[in-house]
Amino acid sequence: MSSIWGNSLKIAIFGESHGKAIGVTIDGLPPGEEIDMEEVLFQMERRSPGRDRMSTNRKESDSPSIISGFYNGKTTGTPLTAIIENTDTRSVDYEDLKILPRPSHADYTGFIRYKGFADPRGGGHFSGRLTAPLVFAGAVCRQILKRRGIVIGAHIYSIGDIADTPFDPVNIDKEPLENLSRMPLPLNDREKEPKIRAAIEAARLDCDSLGGIIECAAVGLPAGIGSPIFDGVENAISSLVFGIPAVKGVEFGAGFAAATMKGSRCNDEFIVQKGEIKTKTNNSGGIQGGITNGMPIILRVAFKPTASIAKEQNTVNLHTLEEEKLIIKGRHDPCIVPRAVPVVESAIAVALCDLLKEVNAL
Amino acid sequence: MSSIWGNSLKIAIFGESHGKAIGVTIDGLPPGEEIDMEEVLFQMERRSPGRDRMSTNRKESDSPSIISGFYNGKTTGTPLTAIIENTDTRSVDYEDLKILPRPSHADYTGFIRYKGFADPRGGGHFSGRLTAPLVFAGAVCRQILKRRGIVIGAHIYSIGDIADTPFDPVNIDKEPLENLSRMPLPLNDREKEPKIRAAIEAARLDCDSLGGIIECAAVGLPAGIGSPIFDGVENAISSLVFGIPAVKGVEFGAGFAAATMKGSRCNDEFIVQKGEIKTKTNNSGGIQGGITNGMPIILRVAFKPTASIAKEQNTVNLHTLEEEKLIIKGRHDPCIVPRAVPVVESAIAVALCDLLKEVNAL
Amino acid sequence: MSSIWGNSLKIAIFGESHGKAIGVTIDGLPPGEEIDMEEVLFQMERRSPGRDRMSTNRKESDSPSIISGFYNGKTTGTPLTAIIENTDTRSVDYEDLKILPRPSHADYTGFIRYKGFADPRGGGHFSGRLTAPLVFAGAVCRQILKRRGIVIGAHIYSIGDIADTPFDPVNIDKEPLENLSRMPLPLNDREKEPKIRAAIEAARLDCDSLGGIIECAAVGLPAGIGSPIFDGVENAISSLVFGIPAVKGVEFGAGFAAATMKGSRCNDEFIVQKGEIKTKTNNSGGIQGGITNGMPIILRVAFKPTASIAKEQNTVNLHTLEEEKLIIKGRHDPCIVPRAVPVVESAIAVALCDLLKEVNAL
Amino acid sequence: MSSIWGNSLKIAIFGESHGKAIGVTIDGLPPGEEIDMEEVLFQMERRSPGRDRMSTNRKESDSPSIISGFYNGKTTGTPLTAIIENTDTRSVDYEDLKILPRPSHADYTGFIRYKGFADPRGGGHFSGRLTAPLVFAGAVCRQILKRRGIVIGAHIYSIGDIADTPFDPVNIDKEPLENLSRMPLPLNDREKEPKIRAAIEAARLDCDSLGGIIECAAVGLPAGIGSPIFDGVENAISSLVFGIPAVKGVEFGAGFAAATMKGSRCNDEFIVQKGEIKTKTNNSGGIQGGITNGMPIILRVAFKPTASIAKEQNTVNLHTLEEEKLIIKGRHDPCIVPRAVPVVESAIAVALCDLLKEVNAL
Repeated sequence: MSSIWGNSLKIAIFGESHGKAIGVTIDGLPPGEEIDMEEVLFQMERRSPGRDRMSTNRKESDSPSIISGFYNGKTTGTPLTAIIENTDTRSVDYEDLKILPRPSHADYTGFIRYKGFADPRGGGHFSGRLTAPLVFAGAVCRQILKRRGIVIGAHIYSIGDIADTPFDPVNIDKEPLENLSRMPLPLNDREKEPKIRAAIEAARLDCDSLGGIIECAAVGLPAGIGSPIFDGVENAISSLVFGIPAVKGVEFGAGFAAATMKGSRCNDEFIVQKGEIKTKTNNSGGIQGGITNGMPIILRVAFKPTASIAKEQNTVNLHTLEEEKLIIKGRHDPCIVPRAVPVVESAIAVALCDLLKEVNAL
Repeated sequence: MSSIWGNSLKIAIFGESHGKAIGVTIDGLPPGEEIDMEEVLFQMERRSPGRDRMSTNRKESDSPSIISGFYNGKTTGTPLTAIIENTDTRSVDYEDLKILPRPSHADYTGFIRYKGFADPRGGGHFSGRLTAPLVFAGAVCRQILKRRGIVIGAHIYSIGDIADTPFDPVNIDKEPLENLSRMPLPLNDREKEPKIRAAIEAARLDCDSLGGIIECAAVGLPAGIGSPIFDGVENAISSLVFGIPAVKGVEFGAGFAAATMKGSRCNDEFIVQKGEIKTKTNNSGGIQGGITNGMPIILRVAFKPTASIAKEQNTVNLHTLEEEKLIIKGRHDPCIVPRAVPVVESAIAVALCDLLKEVNAL
Repeated sequence: MSSIWGNSLKIAIFGESHGKAIGVTIDGLPPGEEIDMEEVLFQMERRSPGRDRMSTNRKESDSPSIISGFYNGKTTGTPLTAIIENTDTRSVDYEDLKILPRPSHADYTGFIRYKGFADPRGGGHFSGRLTAPLVFAGAVCRQILKRRGIVIGAHIYSIGDIADTPFDPVNIDKEPLENLSRMPLPLNDREKEPKIRAAIEAARLDCDSLGGIIECAAVGLPAGIGSPIFDGVENAISSLVFGIPAVKGVEFGAGFAAATMKGSRCNDEFIVQKGEIKTKTNNSGGIQGGITNGMPIILRVAFKPTASIAKEQNTVNLHTLEEEKLIIKGRHDPCIVPRAVPVVESAIAVALCDLLKEVNAL
Repeated sequence: MSSIWGNSLKIAIFGESHGKAIGVTIDGLPPGEEIDMEEVLFQMERRSPGRDRMSTNRKESDSPSIISGFYNGKTTGTPLTAIIENTDTRSVDYEDLKILPRPSHADYTGFIRYKGFADPRGGGHFSGRLTAPLVFAGAVCRQILKRRGIVIGAHIYSIGDIADTPFDPVNIDKEPLENLSRMPLPLNDREKEPKIRAAIEAARLDCDSLGGIIECAAVGLPAGIGSPIFDGVENAISSLVFGIPAVKGVEFGAGFAAATMKGSRCNDEFIVQKGEIKTKTNNSGGIQGGITNGMPIILRVAFKPTASIAKEQNTVNLHTLEEEKLIIKGRHDPCIVPRAVPVVESAIAVALCDLLKEVNAL
């Protein structure tokens, strides 16, 4: 327990990588919200594999079917459930994994946690494929947010040791932020794209993998969203973001860098701009005391390199308790980060809808 | 909403910095657990201010009074509530803050969120003082954990740009881990202590402040604790840790550094050691797929520098919407990190008790 | 919000009567539990309409398809989702209902609550059809309970003014309790069957409907399950049972009759029977202070008569705010009580699994 | 687990009958709400014992002290905690109860549930005294509701076999409803008062006790509050009301009587009254599909007779497992119903605040 998240807006994610279907129930959506299914499919396509060399050759059918909560093109307000059928699955690839756990995967921990009964095929419920329903939920939520002037966007902050230009945390315009969605590799500095592609291809050829960092921003939020102590914006977002496989760290605003700043530099002084209270800098990432201050929300999410690599690795046979060699077959992304961008955005969108509803703003 | 946290073990924190009292209810403790109140007071003393130059001169009476759930020296299993009275409060220091919000504090966001009705004295419910009840809850939980062989400890990973020796994530002995609690500045490399004290004192004399990073470890946990997706160890811990004021980032295992590693280096290969399954490295920080793998849990928490500094700062008058100068009076820590160490440990202890209970292991 | 229920075991119900499908996610099932699908289908069949004269002629295909959480014939421990497709729906019957709310249905309240966007066809998310996923969840849970010696059964306590013989609250054998499931009209006194059938048929011919009371028992529970104040057995069961459409009352043990007893008669004195602590009477219905005492759990659930009747009724046009006459077309049960028996049993089964898990007994 | 209740508004109740103090945290109150403490004390006084012959001679000091969430006479919006100290406790009366459980009390079930570690004095956390914090929370909530035109009131529907005149479910004026609070025995038909007093006194002299039924109404609620399936008005209210000791049944509207009605009589036809949609009858008790329809909410709550009677009773020694005789000493109410009236009202008030907040109406 539990794949259910949320307070005022809840999502329940279900399914296994190679089972019949995966899906999500969203409970608590406002009624009467139009959903542009083209846009939903576009967002899901961004996450789906098989688009180019950077990702696995598997072609999954990430085509969601809404089975409830949606009537005459609008949300009903009752639970909205979408199902995504699993089609292109080759379970034979995963036969051995039940006894030979893959390093840095959840095979071993899942085996212990579920006493050997978890579905091992393709990682089962632990699979990165389970982020597809999250992207569906996020795609619905971001349409609702956008209608209220709130825009979410993210770029690849870094892959391996190649860094993109970070966001200017004080000035983020909605249009370019949204346009990041339209790039296969969302980057502020598009000239980095060839270098990144080359690095990923090199890792692939080397039977290895790369990690990276995604920087996400949300603009247009009013001040006053979130709550102190345990229901703040950071608590909500981080509790969702750590549900994305391979995430190892989350930071807001200046984040870990704030730890080396002096207070006089880190503090965000208040100013008046066009009659509105703003801050001169935004090391707080738009959040103070768990509550939005009207500045852009800024966060960065660290992804470890893909755990599935084609190199031979050491593992332990769970039956014999003897050390063995393992070669992982199957199709895997040398770098998950580009496909993870819409996943991170989606987590933020879901979290913000919940937080807005909590304070009667949705 | 909401200062209530947890699934199988819940904590509800209440109070304001300068109100009558602050406190916590812990709901879901196992019955029959002895509580060593000396040890509880010792942990609370670590957090309390006024111990030396590094922290504020305020002397708070952090003396918890248990008013329920505790009978004949043992937990009853019904809600345990402890109250800490606020005694040494000088509310006059904070008079202006209601209209002149302090930069990077929650004065402004709290004002908007609670429509001007929040208690502004000393930060009210947003005050760092609200971590005292969390330390109380953590002190109770860590005794319960210790009885089951689970030990939590933390050290100052860095303050400003001075770094301590990190934990060896593979080998952490319980005794030295626990002994960190006994040091005023918990450090793996004690020779760093004078440098750190000097840096904090320099910041103080400069009317400025410092941030830092705390590294925390938990050892002795069995494999199989936690759940995939939203109820994993990272989700639970991060959702609590971001409840600690000034926290701007959390990372597990190799954390953000994992983003620059190749998979072949980052992956934790499985080995057998004394008949038990271990991993050769521990870049996962003891967690895979949200579930413990039996290796030490390792995390780092970034704290921004204390927002309250004695230097003059710019702010905005909330009534006139005009920019004004602000000089914060009162007593404040030039660096909150040393006092935050037991707070981080406590958050981990509470999270682990909840997670253990979730899988019937408590 | 919200169609999600539970603490340690959660269920999330979704769907509308005439939408694509309805279903349920069960989160928190123990791993490795076999599910006898024949038995599940049998329980669902008991609820499904169209079996005989007493119920509507609609033939729904209540055939659940498990799409996650079930592998090699056993639960995996991760969320189990089942979908039931809606097939035999004639939405034309319900066209007018959006503006002419049916008396004592949720048409009007749902219209207000969801601002006119709820799916009106067949009652949408408010339909009695939404009890099918609950019966699915209950059928899974009762198999898990039975494996641990816990048996749930119910009989028709009364329909209209015809009463069955009540349970002897002190002595309920498992076998006859379970065998009630096998009767189309579960009755302790089978001789009442013709009278009840006749009364229902008379109501049908009269374009009217009947209500009734279901009495449910659970035996084999150990003492010590449940918690005081808000998480007791009664709280959990009632919060689920009031989710069944048409339920207007719930009572435990002697229930409302206890209000007319003297304490000396109502109190359940303790006795020793075969070395075990029992009570001589069972006016408590097996629950004291919210916690099981090892005696049979006994409760009664009151159902109002079916709101859909073929007689002409008065209603108000929601557009014109003028009073109008309404004749409800379509197929409806003159008495829902026989089909509700497995629904009530299922609610109890789900509640008990949650409560058992809460105290580490599952 | 758990003495915490609620979704959008949460209450956490703590304490034991003879411990240091009992209390409640209310999390999620709107900020800026005045609280008339005179009125709060008045409501608590209604519940407190020792007022006259009908109740125990114990004089408890039910004087709540607010320690957080309340500033300058108004709610802050952050958690409001109130403590009630236990003063007049004579624990010696309860010495034996730990091994000789009182029939129909929670002594035995609490002993098993908490493995013998629960505080046995005066019933500990199971005591009826724990309803005092609920009345405090209710007294706060009903002031908030009243400011929005919502009034809650209740009368003694019956004690033993003496019945009061029921509410007219269609026409309930706010003023007389509220005035019921001002009567020591809230009755619609005041002429029943001497008979009821005589019956209670007779039970007391006979070392016995009486139960009864409380009927509660809430008027002024808009239509559209509540949600289908598990978060309806009935679910919320019943899950709270069964937290009141001695409650054995709850019914809404026509309740159990609806089970004997025909649909044509039970259905509440819609009419237009002064331009508003109303129902001609109110067998639904103001709730359809879990959602308010704007008519008065009506419910009845059945209380069993006080379990503590002065007559000798049979019980079992938990140590020796032998049957023994028990005479309960101490001071006990021969009938708890009069004191339970404000408790039931309070449960409704808390439930309604949560439900209103859920749909952004608070």
